[in-house]
Amino acid sequence: MDFMSALRAAWRERDSLLCVGLDPDPARLPPSLAGKPCAIFEFCCAIVDVTADLVCAFKPQIAYFAACRAEDQLEALIEHIHAQHPGIPVILDAKRGDIGSTAGRYAEEAFARYRADAVTVNPYMGRDSVEPYLAWESKGVILLCRTSNPGGADLQGLALGDGEKLYERVARLVSSSWNASGNCALVVGATFPEELARVRALVGDMPLLVPGIGAQGGDIAATVSAGQTKDGLGLILNSSRAILYAGERKYWDGDFATAARQAALDACAAINACRVSPRLSMLKE
Amino acid sequence: MDFMSALRAAWRERDSLLCVGLDPDPARLPPSLAGKPCAIFEFCCAIVDVTADLVCAFKPQIAYFAACRAEDQLEALIEHIHAQHPGIPVILDAKRGDIGSTAGRYAEEAFARYRADAVTVNPYMGRDSVEPYLAWESKGVILLCRTSNPGGADLQGLALGDGEKLYERVARLVSSSWNASGNCALVVGATFPEELARVRALVGDMPLLVPGIGAQGGDIAATVSAGQTKDGLGLILNSSRAILYAGERKYWDGDFATAARQAALDACAAINACRVSPRLSMLKE
Repeated sequence: MDFMSALRAAWRERDSLLCVGLDPDPARLPPSLAGKPCAIFEFCCAIVDVTADLVCAFKPQIAYFAACRAEDQLEALIEHIHAQHPGIPVILDAKRGDIGSTAGRYAEEAFARYRADAVTVNPYMGRDSVEPYLAWESKGVILLCRTSNPGGADLQGLALGDGEKLYERVARLVSSSWNASGNCALVVGATFPEELARVRALVGDMPLLVPGIGAQGGDIAATVSAGQTKDGLGLILNSSRAILYAGERKYWDGDFATAARQAALDACAAINACRVSPRLSMLKE
Repeated sequence: MDFMSALRAAWRERDSLLCVGLDPDPARLPPSLAGKPCAIFEFCCAIVDVTADLVCAFKPQIAYFAACRAEDQLEALIEHIHAQHPGIPVILDAKRGDIGSTAGRYAEEAFARYRADAVTVNPYMGRDSVEPYLAWESKGVILLCRTSNPGGADLQGLALGDGEKLYERVARLVSSSWNASGNCALVVGATFPEELARVRALVGDMPLLVPGIGAQGGDIAATVSAGQTKDGLGLILNSSRAILYAGERKYWDGDFATAARQAALDACAAINACRVSPRLSMLKE
């Protein structure tokens, strides 16, 4: 199934906009896994297995694997998700950006080597740097637009000659031109709900990947209100650290997976309480 | 030695502004290496060994290794350069860009795992996304400014409210603010000499990494004239495919290394013919 269809199916079937980000920090793994040769893989698989019924996507962040020489564990993790939880799309968070011939190699890395369903891409180098990803029409191409970090405004918030902000121009370029095959989405941080609303107004129903809820402090109610589409969908709300490391205080070295599941349940409930009705969850009740 | 010192020493000692880009395309390796388990490593080492006396830097492009599951060959290649050709800085062309905690992992990947002396970084996410790299003060942080591809203008060429172009703002931001530790450089393509001259005017003597000579068709005379500093330095002029695959027509499967050396010699001569005097090469004569 292509990424967009899989995402829409996951939203509806699981009644969830939550994406669990897999950012395994070696310094924060449970002590019970410390020293194991595949500790990163085991940790991430445990998180995946206890949250798979609650999410619309998983998002492994490649830097956490690459810094540890653990590309093989990332391959095995994505293989595990596809095999054990078929239908849940995997977004490889890589934020690559390069010229055509090199971008083709990065697309190969994401889609052929790692078998990701979608990848995050940096738009700074322009349309031809994105085309090698777009050519994989069944895959999702998720372009950075307005990121959740404070410095995101340094460039993205600059006003152009006609008053439009750079991130707004990126949103317009992607939705009106780069998205010819319908496989684009955008990254817009949860930390700036007004800008999320502005992007939503510019791009119609295009999916928005929204980091920044959870550890980064984005307000869930404001985020859902600003970013959801009319049918209460359209958002991939990512939480990484708040779920992965939920067990650090109470359960660490006991049951980190149960703590993660509880954190994911809480996040889902908080998100769904803010979505427009009718929702599948209400129909089911 | 820190990156900036090593670069300046390499410029002067080798009298060269040439950087050889290591972009090993598996479809273009010499037939004599085809099927060998470490073909990429062997090919790149051969290129390195025949051009090391002619270059100011080597620039491996990580996508070509990652797409082939060849991170171990990239590690071994950089180790080979450091061991066999000490003093030549290695620029890891990765163009990463992410928020603070993740950027820290990417910096770890580039500088600790791969032992690169410098890394290319995308500025779209702003200053705090770059700081984890800047904190490695002995390492070079080379920020994308105006790239050599046609689509580079899509964002980088946009005029801001005050008429300044986005790439000019990036050049000013980096030189006036982000470069507090003196370890920054910029990527500016050879395909737009007027914009290269504009950046040079904005950033003083900051080194500029310039892709686009060779296969991408950038004019060497115009590039050197626009980008060199008053002492005929300041540029890292990258050529990848025109050197790596110089042997494809005449020498392929014969002596690809000799062909690559000849292409590098030709590039050096063409570059040096355009540099301002007095140059070390002239003093030596």
